[in-house]
Amino acid sequence: MVHHSGELIGTVAFAASGALVAVRRNLDVVGILLLAVATALGGGIVRDVIIGNTPPIAFTDYRFLVAAAAAGLLIFFWRVPARLTRWPLDVTDAIGLGMFAVAGTVVAYDWGLGAPGAALLGLTTAIGGGVIRDVLSGQIPIVLRPGEHLYAIPALACASAVAILLRYTDYQAWMGLVCAVAAIALRLASLKFGWHGPRPWYTGRTEPEG
Amino acid sequence: MVHHSGELIGTVAFAASGALVAVRRNLDVVGILLLAVATALGGGIVRDVIIGNTPPIAFTDYRFLVAAAAAGLLIFFWRVPARLTRWPLDVTDAIGLGMFAVAGTVVAYDWGLGAPGAALLGLTTAIGGGVIRDVLSGQIPIVLRPGEHLYAIPALACASAVAILLRYTDYQAWMGLVCAVAAIALRLASLKFGWHGPRPWYTGRTEPEG
Amino acid sequence: MVHHSGELIGTVAFAASGALVAVRRNLDVVGILLLAVATALGGGIVRDVIIGNTPPIAFTDYRFLVAAAAAGLLIFFWRVPARLTRWPLDVTDAIGLGMFAVAGTVVAYDWGLGAPGAALLGLTTAIGGGVIRDVLSGQIPIVLRPGEHLYAIPALACASAVAILLRYTDYQAWMGLVCAVAAIALRLASLKFGWHGPRPWYTGRTEPEG
Repeated sequence: MVHHSGELIGTVAFAASGALVAVRRNLDVVGILLLAVATALGGGIVRDVIIGNTPPIAFTDYRFLVAAAAAGLLIFFWRVPARLTRWPLDVTDAIGLGMFAVAGTVVAYDWGLGAPGAALLGLTTAIGGGVIRDVLSGQIPIVLRPGEHLYAIPALACASAVAILLRYTDYQAWMGLVCAVAAIALRLASLKFGWHGPRPWYTGRTEPEG
Repeated sequence: MVHHSGELIGTVAFAASGALVAVRRNLDVVGILLLAVATALGGGIVRDVIIGNTPPIAFTDYRFLVAAAAAGLLIFFWRVPARLTRWPLDVTDAIGLGMFAVAGTVVAYDWGLGAPGAALLGLTTAIGGGVIRDVLSGQIPIVLRPGEHLYAIPALACASAVAILLRYTDYQAWMGLVCAVAAIALRLASLKFGWHGPRPWYTGRTEPEG
Repeated sequence: MVHHSGELIGTVAFAASGALVAVRRNLDVVGILLLAVATALGGGIVRDVIIGNTPPIAFTDYRFLVAAAAAGLLIFFWRVPARLTRWPLDVTDAIGLGMFAVAGTVVAYDWGLGAPGAALLGLTTAIGGGVIRDVLSGQIPIVLRPGEHLYAIPALACASAVAILLRYTDYQAWMGLVCAVAAIALRLASLKFGWHGPRPWYTGRTEPEG
């Protein structure tokens, strides 16, 4: 179960991102723990429910719960300055994104999904935790924010690469790690250098809703 | 699998509605595709997870994914004027609502649910895609917007009629199509003529929250 | 099926809380019914989907649906004054919280989850209905609102106590009732006396997002 290592790293990273969002919103220790755990376990629970792997491993293998809660508590007890809730949030979220893109694809493929379905579920797993974190916090999910930098593209590229490797090669865990690192680097580079996906060329502004 | 045709039409319609919302919010091509796919496949995935039909057909029958992505790409590449993001949004959303009310009810009934449970799941499937689209966009779902016109009533009436037909007649696909068209017409007529459901008579205004 | 009685009480209470939120937001009768039913059945559906008990009992045992709809209709037809949409909302929400914490834990344990997993799922069930209600209404869930009083702590304490009782004693239904009442009392006392969980000590204000 080598992909469990990657999923644990992603769990800790996503838990930290949820805890940092909770700190920025000035929630108490319970809110910090809840948002850390929901962000960290949410994507994997969605994946397991979709493939029918019930109850999800988050409810049977308590390492994920303990790791997520520990990351949340660490951030609660650590005197993190407010300015450190911004770029570490981006970094931890990117690590979770890349790790879960790989773990989601591998688990879905092992469970019998075809390569395209496994890649789609890998993408869902990767962005699911962040979507849950942001919706629960009353924010638009990063992945659908106007003007946001590359987010789904690194995750989808990573999940697709892993699906192709699973389908056509003798997949090894280091291949998944390379894909995850590439996705994380692409996400962070897009933040650093301000890369965007192409927008429809017929509109230059956000039209107000309603 | 005649209901698959109706579900494909509903998939394309909901995908277009999601893409139009994304265009109005000035998202890039990835955001448009994601919102199109999430809106189009979301209701069916929820339905399949609830009845235990895992993995959901969206992850195994790729026609739905391809149709949804194609509808999203079409709207991205078509120079849709901003004014065309309003009434086509209502129309495509209504088509998806009617089609999924039928498809959700039929699939749930075939899977062994009783007629009331099948109608309830048909309603859930019909409004599920739009709820996912609106929550992910940071909007209140159409179905729960104060002052919104008839939305759940057409879907519930359609799902109930289909459930009764399934239970008491030799159900044919054209019956479902008639129900779907009636639901779509009722939804659009309520928009055209400003029909509302009855409100509690003891309050004439929206009280501010908080 | 003694826990079904508690779940029915929780269902009616959560349905009333959903209907009261809908009344405050001036929704019509369909919106009131939908928010009542989604709040009342949502937590249990999530629980059943997670443990793999599909279709969820809400779709096969119609007592829950009928009870939720009846509570919603009662609040629609009763001339509830606007001032009565505040503290009854807190009280019904607290009752639902306590009852579902017990019912969720018992069902999960009966289904074979270990005691920690059962407590986690009991917490999920307890807060799930309220989260669905608030997200669908465009509000931040109570459980994650900055400055909110104790909410998850009573639910988690109750679920943990029930899980311990299930694991180490000859569990009787009255034990669950005691736990539920204690959780409800703790939630309401925290509202009355203004109790909060500890916050990180390094920040005294809510930093604006974005």
